[in-house]
This record gives sequence, structure tokens and C-alpha cells, in this order.
Amino acid sequence: MSYRIDFWFELASTYSFLAAERIEALAAERNVDVTWRPLLLGAIFKKQGYTTSPFNQYVVKGRYMWRDMERWCDRLGIPLKRPNPFPQNTLRATRVCAGLEGADRIAFTKAVFRAQFSEGAAVEDRAVLTRILRACAIEPEAAMVRAESEGVKARLRAETEQAESIGVFGAPTFGTRDGELFWGNDRLEEALDWTIGKR
Amino acid sequence: MSYRIDFWFELASTYSFLAAERIEALAAERNVDVTWRPLLLGAIFKKQGYTTSPFNQYVVKGRYMWRDMERWCDRLGIPLKRPNPFPQNTLRATRVCAGLEGADRIAFTKAVFRAQFSEGAAVEDRAVLTRILRACAIEPEAAMVRAESEGVKARLRAETEQAESIGVFGAPTFGTRDGELFWGNDRLEEALDWTIGKR
Repeated sequence: MSYRIDFWFELASTYSFLAAERIEALAAERNVDVTWRPLLLGAIFKKQGYTTSPFNQYVVKGRYMWRDMERWCDRLGIPLKRPNPFPQNTLRATRVCAGLEGADRIAFTKAVFRAQFSEGAAVEDRAVLTRILRACAIEPEAAMVRAESEGVKARLRAETEQAESIGVFGAPTFGTRDGELFWGNDRLEEALDWTIGKR
Repeated sequence: MSYRIDFWFELASTYSFLAAERIEALAAERNVDVTWRPLLLGAIFKKQGYTTSPFNQYVVKGRYMWRDMERWCDRLGIPLKRPNPFPQNTLRATRVCAGLEGADRIAFTKAVFRAQFSEGAAVEDRAVLTRILRACAIEPEAAMVRAESEGVKARLRAETEQAESIGVFGAPTFGTRDGELFWGNDRLEEALDWTIGKR
């Protein structure tokens, strides 16, 4: 029997970054296949009435989040460098991501997160994305052109709408085959355990 | 060496309920003493711009929370019955709580949570509080009078202000001696582990 989980993520999201760093090993331990599904959280936030990241809208919560990120990154042995501004505009990067498949998508996603949150790089920048794509051995021009195609844009919108329709309100969110959602990097293990029937 | 953690909770908070159910056993395993500190989250939320519980303000998030509560309560073997309305007005109960010390405070807190979230009882009701106090072997009249004293009201306000001043923005929040905060029932184990130096 094979297990599967949906990993909904937003490229500008700090806790999506942590989940992207952690999910492969934890899923492999449990024999769970992961579907990496980028979404545009801004569109979902807007409908909830947020005008920016909740971590900016609620300043004290934002301060907590960055300290929490320091603790997580320390524990995982990952450098943390806060991008400026936060959140980054990740529309272009997310379209590139949505235009990639399989291992390319995963490698690109992890590299965008690392560039953004370990180096503080401006991932809205075409030159930065080009460098990231090259480092992933993905041909940058083709990926960039595909990202701006109507097909990819429409697919990304549809993915975001699907996420919203099943109740995704933040990222990361893990979706199981039986329709459960688990929100937050700190619920990743629980989501995977649910997937394999361990409650 | 003895360890200590602050357990900041709000009596109307669903996840504070779960933490109250779990913290004693988990803290005992690690030899950590717990200081149970009630606060008035409404006052803190108001300053953040919330007009009601975030779980009501953000409807989809609220729906997720109740499903998440079902899963947690199933796993813990605790009945779940949603109080109506949610959130309950817990001002009176919180003042009673703040006027109690030691084991009485802990017993009363757990009983209020159980009445509210396992029986769906209206814990703003004096008769309900009287019943809860009796079941805890606490003399109801004296506890109720003490709850309305200026001393207890002032202490509760001061506690809430202290929580806010150290960066508490939600409940439950666990505070360590070295100034770290961990927010959420799902971070309880991590907070306790931090307290004993296990990271």
C-alpha cells in the first residue's frame, strides 16, 4: 500500500520553508509520497481580510515568529537571514515553481526558500531566479517563459482555488487523502502519522 | 536543580483547555514545576485589533480549529462539546481562578475547562461556577466574594499586563525562565524540553 500527502506551501512563508526542509526525510521514514503544491496565499489572505502577512499585521506575533524561526533554524542547523522586505513578492517564483514538475519542482522550491531565508536574497528578482534555476540544473530561459504562459498561470490560480475550497487558510498545510487538513510546520509529523493510520 | 515554567492560559480558549489536560503529566516526567497563570486574552486581543476570537473573525480558520479539537479530544479520550456562544464570557470564572492558589486553582481551572468544552456548560453562569467550585471542594461563596475583591481584580489586570509586556499574544503560551515563549498547545513538549535544557 502506498501513502500520499499534499504539501501546500507558499514561497514567501517562513514556516513553509521549515516544512520544505523537513518533509522529505520524515515522509520517507513513513513511506509516504509527497505532492508539492505551491499556492498563492496572498489571494486567500485577501479574502480573509488581511492586508499583509499576519506576521506584519500583528506585530507582537511577528516578533514571536522570527524568534521561533531562530530556534527552529538553530536546531535544524540552517542559517537564517531575514529577507527585506518581508514578505517577499513571490508571484514570479511561484509561477516558475508551478511550471516545473517532479524533482525539478522540489529542488527549485527548496532553493528558493534557502536563498530567501538563509541568504536574505530578493527572490522576486529575475537574476536571482536565474541563478537559482542554474544551480538546480534547470534551463532558466525556458523555465521563465513557461512560468509566464497562460497555461501555468491558470493552473496556479486553479490550484489556489482548490486549496481554498478544501479549507486551506494558511501555509504550510498538509492534506490527507481522507480529507483532513493539518496546518503548520509543527503539525507535519502528526499529518504524516495520520496518513499512515497512526493516530 | 529544579525547573519551572509559566503556563499562561485563557479560560475561554480551546487550546488552553488541551494544554491544561496535558501539562501536568508532561511536566512531571521532566521534573518541571508549572505556575498556572490565568490572563484575560480579550484585553490583549483588543489591542491587536481583534473584535472577537480570531476563530470567529476568520471563519475558515475557526472551522479548522473545531475539527482539530475533535481530533485532539479523540486522541486524548476527552469528550468535546462546543459551548454556545463561543467564546464564552469567562471574566467571572477567571477572577475566581485568580483568587485561588495552588492546588485549588489548578483543580478549578481544569474543571471550568471540562464543564465548558466537554459538557458545553455556560461558565459565565454563577450557578455553574458554584457547582464547579463545590465539586472541587472549594467553598463557593468565599471564592466568589474574593473573586470580586479589588485586590484580585487588580492582580489579574497586572498579570495580563505582564503577559502582554513579555510578548504574549495568544493562549496557551509557555514562558521559560530564560525568557523564551512558546505559543500553542502543540508546542508544549518543546517548551518543557527547552526548560530542562534539551533542545
